[in-house]
Formats: sequence, C-alpha cells, structure tokens
Amino acid sequence: MTLTTNVNVEAQAMEAKKASKKLMILSEEEKNQALNHLADVLEREYETILAANEKDLANGREKGFTDAFMDRLSLSKERVAEFAQGLRDVSKLEDPTGQVVTDWTLENGLQVEKVTVPLGVIGMIYEARPNVTVDATGLALKSGNAIVLKGGSSAINSNQAIVEVMHRGLEETKIPKEAVQFIASTDRAATNELFKMKEHIDVLIPRGGGKLIQAVVENATVPVLETGVGNCHIYVDKHADVEKAINILVNAKTDRPAVCNAAETLVVHKEWLNDNKDALIAALKENNIAVHGDEYILDIIPGSVLADEDDWANEYLSTDIAVKAVDDLTEAIAHIETYGTKHSEAIVTEDAESAETFFALVDAAALYHNASTRFTDGGALGFGAEIGISTQKLHARGPMGLPALTTVKFLMKGTGQIR
Amino acid sequence: MTLTTNVNVEAQAMEAKKASKKLMILSEEEKNQALNHLADVLEREYETILAANEKDLANGREKGFTDAFMDRLSLSKERVAEFAQGLRDVSKLEDPTGQVVTDWTLENGLQVEKVTVPLGVIGMIYEARPNVTVDATGLALKSGNAIVLKGGSSAINSNQAIVEVMHRGLEETKIPKEAVQFIASTDRAATNELFKMKEHIDVLIPRGGGKLIQAVVENATVPVLETGVGNCHIYVDKHADVEKAINILVNAKTDRPAVCNAAETLVVHKEWLNDNKDALIAALKENNIAVHGDEYILDIIPGSVLADEDDWANEYLSTDIAVKAVDDLTEAIAHIETYGTKHSEAIVTEDAESAETFFALVDAAALYHNASTRFTDGGALGFGAEIGISTQKLHARGPMGLPALTTVKFLMKGTGQIR
Repeated sequence: MTLTTNVNVEAQAMEAKKASKKLMILSEEEKNQALNHLADVLEREYETILAANEKDLANGREKGFTDAFMDRLSLSKERVAEFAQGLRDVSKLEDPTGQVVTDWTLENGLQVEKVTVPLGVIGMIYEARPNVTVDATGLALKSGNAIVLKGGSSAINSNQAIVEVMHRGLEETKIPKEAVQFIASTDRAATNELFKMKEHIDVLIPRGGGKLIQAVVENATVPVLETGVGNCHIYVDKHADVEKAINILVNAKTDRPAVCNAAETLVVHKEWLNDNKDALIAALKENNIAVHGDEYILDIIPGSVLADEDDWANEYLSTDIAVKAVDDLTEAIAHIETYGTKHSEAIVTEDAESAETFFALVDAAALYHNASTRFTDGGALGFGAEIGISTQKLHARGPMGLPALTTVKFLMKGTGQIR
Repeated sequence: MTLTTNVNVEAQAMEAKKASKKLMILSEEEKNQALNHLADVLEREYETILAANEKDLANGREKGFTDAFMDRLSLSKERVAEFAQGLRDVSKLEDPTGQVVTDWTLENGLQVEKVTVPLGVIGMIYEARPNVTVDATGLALKSGNAIVLKGGSSAINSNQAIVEVMHRGLEETKIPKEAVQFIASTDRAATNELFKMKEHIDVLIPRGGGKLIQAVVENATVPVLETGVGNCHIYVDKHADVEKAINILVNAKTDRPAVCNAAETLVVHKEWLNDNKDALIAALKENNIAVHGDEYILDIIPGSVLADEDDWANEYLSTDIAVKAVDDLTEAIAHIETYGTKHSEAIVTEDAESAETFFALVDAAALYHNASTRFTDGGALGFGAEIGISTQKLHARGPMGLPALTTVKFLMKGTGQIR
C-alpha cells in the first residue's frame, strides 16, 4: 500500500460535502441496509485488514511502542467481527434525524416545524485504535452524515485497509462511497488543513490525548466537539461511609485506569482521614495504588511521595493517585475547580446538604453522590452508542449519543404570509 | 466620566466567574426580584443615562455618522422606559434552568438526572445600540449567568452609564453586582483579550456586522454562538403564484431592509420570469427596489445594473436586490449553497415536490415555503425573548431563546454503586 503525503484535503472535504447531500435524503431503511452490508463485507474481507494491520504492528515493534499501545493497535479476526457487530448494533438504533422537536402554528396560519437533520460532514481526528475508523463511520452514516477520517500515523495501514474494504462495500449500497473519506497522510500539515475546512466540514471531533484535543481546540475554525480528558476527583467528605468511600475510590481508580472516567485525585477531609487511615492505607496497598500526596498526606500514608503541580493537573491513566487533604467542603470544591477538567466528579458523604452543595457548585458534565465516576459512559448509561464524552458546555455535554450528530432546521409552511 | 484604556480584562472575567457561582444558586424569585428592581432603577435614573448618551451623540456628530446610525445610538426617556419594560418582560418568562430534561434509574439503582444549568459567564461583544447592554444583561441574569459586556466605542459613554446605574441597583438585590462586568475600553486589544478567556468565559456572543462576527469566529478560543449575518434568498419557482411571489418578495426586501432576515437576492425561474415580467417590473419600480442582475436579467428588467461577485455574496441591508435567473430548481439550490449564509431561505411555488426538495437540500436555519423570510425572529415566532439568531449548527440554530444560555449536568445519586 502506497501512502501518499500529497493528499488533497480540501478536495476530499468537498467530495464529502457533496456526498452528504445524497446521504441526507436516504430513508432510514436504506441507511440500515448499508450498515448491515458493510458489516458483512468487513467480516468477509478480514484477511485484507489483518495483512495491513501486520505492517502497522511491524512498524510499532520497530519503534518500540509499549505493550499496552501494541495491544490497542493489534487486530484479529475476532476484533474485526466485533467491528461488524458494532455496525449491526448501530443499525438497530433509532434514527436521530427527521424527528419533529416541536411544531406550532402562528395566528396568521404559518406552520412552524423544528426538525432534526444531519449536521452534514463530520471530521474525526483520532489516535491509535483502528476501531474508531469503523465505529465513527457507522455513527456518522446512521445519522445521515458524511465523514472525513484522520487517524493516527501508527495505524495508518490498518485504517486505510478498513476504509478500502468499506468503500467496496458501499458501492453495493445506496450510500455514495464518497461519504467516507480517509486522509491517507501521516503529515501533520494535513491535519492542520482539516482544522480550517469551515466551508465543507460542519464539526470536528478529536478523540485522543489532551495534547491532540488542545491542538484542535486552539487551531480549528471548524466548530469542535471537545471530548475526553478527565482529571476526575473523588472527594471523601467528613461524613463519608468508610466502606462506600473505599469501594468507590478503588473502583474509580483501578477498574480501568487508562480511561477518561477513572479517578486521578482523592480529595479527603482531614477528620475522616484521621479516623479511617488504617482502612484507607490497607486498601491502597492491597490494590497497588501509588500515592502522590501533599505535605499532610506524607505524614500519614506510608510510601507516599510529594505531589507537585503536574500531579494535581494531569491524568495519570495508571494506578497512581494524587491525594490532597482538606479542612472542609469549600476547600475541596476550590481544588476541583482549579484542577478539574469538567468531566466527572464524585462526593462520598452521608450528609445530604454537602452533596447538594457539591452538585450545585461543581462545574462538570457528571456529578456523583456515593457512586463511582466510572458510570460516565454511553454504554453504562444505556445510550446504545457513544460518540465520545463531551467536556464542553455547548451543543452536548457528557456522554454523547447519536443526537449529538444532528442539528435542527425550522421548516415554515405558508400560503403567502408576510409581516 | 473617565474612560481608562488600562482595563484588566482577565481580572474582570475572573470576577464574573466568581459572581456566577453565587448567582447560579439563587432562586427564580430572587432573580426576578432583581430584574424588576433594575427596571425601576433604570427608569428612576434615566437622566444620568441621557447625559452620558449626549456625549456619545456629540462624538457621533463630530465623526459625521449617518442619520440611521445616530438614530440607533440615540436614547430618550421613552427608550429607557422600554429597556425597563424589557427587563420586566424577561422576569415573567419561564426560568430555563433547573429543568429535568430526562431521568432514569439504572438496574443497579443508580439514579440519573439530566438537568439544565446556567452556562456560567457570557461574553457579549456588540456594536452601536445601547439597548443590547440592558437586554443582554436581563437575559443573562434571568438564566443564572454572569455577563461580560464589550460594546462598541461609539456608545461607550451610554453603555458605561447604564452599567453604573444597574450596578447601583444590583447592590439592593441578591445578585452580586460583579455578575455584570463592563469592559470600559475602546481599545481593540481588550476585545482580543476577551477572545482568549477560555478559563473564565463560557461562551462569546457577537452581535453586529459580518466583520465583527468573522473576527470573533476566527480568533476566539472561547466557544462562540455565531449570530446574525443573513444573505437570504427568495427563489421564485416555475410554478409560483404571481401574487404570492410578488408580495413575499416585496415584504422580505422592504419591510425592514437593514435586518438579517431581509431578502438580499431574488433567484427566479426563467419561464416564470418571462410569463410575469410586467408584474414583477411594476412591483420593483413601485417599491423603489434597485436591481443588480445577471446578463439575462439586464435584458429584461429596465434600469438594472450588472451584478458582480460582491452582489451575490453580501447583504445590501438596503432596498437594493441582486437578481439571478435560473433554468431549474437545481441551479437555484446550487446558487443558494454557494452564496447563502445558512440563515433563512424561501421558495415560492405551488408545486409540493419542489418545496419538499428545497426543504431537504437547502442547508439553513429556517426554510420557507410560500412565506416571507421576515418570520425568522424570536418575537414573531413567540419565543418571548431572543438572544440572537444562530447561523451555526451546534448548540442552537435559528432564533435563540433563553434555553440557548443553558447547558446540562448529569446528576447521579447512588448508594455506593461501582462498576
């Protein structure tokens, strides 16, 4: 497979826009048939995909990528079958477009209808995992949107093979294959070009680490749906139940440390800590959680090291945790406001008033009282499909399902009405 | 009144953010009381405002501003009373925050509630009219948001006096006066600083001409609610009723030529034009509409001048109109796609299928079949209050009421749930 770096990003974005006009008038059935056909074709041609994936894996080994990274990159017949099943599952979801949000008639007889419609063209910028190539395509097509895919360079052979297989599949459906565009370049300039395609791309969705997302937010003129960075806190209040606090902390920290809804900092009330330090220290030790604490914590938790600004501000995405001791709820909320990323924040307490204050004053997509932050997830909440977890306030906040890929039109039907 | 250019934009934005935390926990009643009190104080202190306005008017006369501009700038006792009434009207609207959008309980007992909450801090960047200072403040406070106001330099004395009066008023209410910040500077650098206050300002709303809006969209890292530029088209189809077509065209063009939902271009089917040119020519003449046409039009409409790219692409905001003759609906839609600003577009036709195609394929906030584009307006549609007309697709599209100033939080109540 030859990877040209002379891609024409604008031409591809324009093709996507043109295709989106054909796609947006297809029926729900035509879109679902196409998704199911794509699923079949992916399963049938899995060997093509695995051969391309082998090239990426060889490159990865050469570059000495970590085992965890190689695992995310690596495909198998079973993983391809999972992609296919994902498309079939999406085909079964409710079509988010064509829904009448509200309608009314003015006194002069003008009929007003506010209807959901596709956004048009989605630009997806993502890192390692090749599954995003299929997942994002499925969600885009289901919601009547074309998609421009720009994956990470480490998976470029796999991604390109997947798109080529999907293109062959689309030729046998009502969806024009130009509705799925793949930017076959490892050149950063191509990504920067995408940022400016305001005429042709309706929204950019970055999926990946904080640096990628920051680059998109700062440089894109295309509107952005910001996803993912979660520097989540568990605040254990003075009135926290010991068992709940420890269960929630351990679960939020260790269940899947590398995901965005995992806990990164424990904020703990000094009184609770002094009463329950033995139980906490035992739980941390048992679960191999490494503590980076403030001065107060260093004296209490054996083996802890001093936390610096980086510890408070960034995600570990490992079983490390930052621990801050506070005198009261106000200090806890102030710490979360300074360092939180507005993703998911939890309070553990038996005091209803403290929970209420926490809910009112902490500015985040998801707030928890006596539960693990791990529930901020489209799957766990029963959304059927998740495009990402929005950490912004406009358009969509928190876990985003298919409706986040739609906008509205006001349709006015008259008989000659004027003002 | 001394106008310092050494304003500290960041300090003001931070003050607004801090105040927003106090504001967002006030009750609906407390907010409404404050709005009504502000209305009383504005009426009581109208002379202070008029004295400051006189300075702006004197500056304006010196600079030779147009009559229309001076009219928008000019205040009177009656206009101040209208501002006050606007605040009272807003106080009567439904509180858009604290509404449960949806709630459900997971199998494990975790209760999930999606609730509307204020955005936090709104940054309003606007041009001449001082009424925006009051209107925007009223809408922000009603929805629980703090506001940072940056008005045009031509109205800076009026705006500052209005804010000072409101500050005095707020001191007698539960809303901290820091919730209303006024950037008292005519320096462009101050506006540019606002663009980057992502930490403290949650959304920027530009109100004014295309250049202002473009500058905000291109330079802001704060999310933007894009409003207002309307290069609106009336497409008169082959099967258009003559009377409806002419009434709608004349109304959309001449009722209020300077507003964003006024028509700027007539796209007309050649067959209809040839059958109905006498009626059209008479109507254009009677209403003093100056025609800038393509080659085809020049031969048909007496007195028309040749349109260039600027005519197709920009708003006249006057009784001038661009006129393009087309062979069919497809050509009409293509023209609108090239030059439209996704605001309001109309088709006049008795053919239901053409109307349906127009509705499906034209990408705009509001589409009209046999009615004037002038109805794209929060007032005309019965929204009660309008923050602006969004021409973007994310968050809010078309006329925006109070809900556009809110976001959501997912509130999760558990009893120790973990994954």
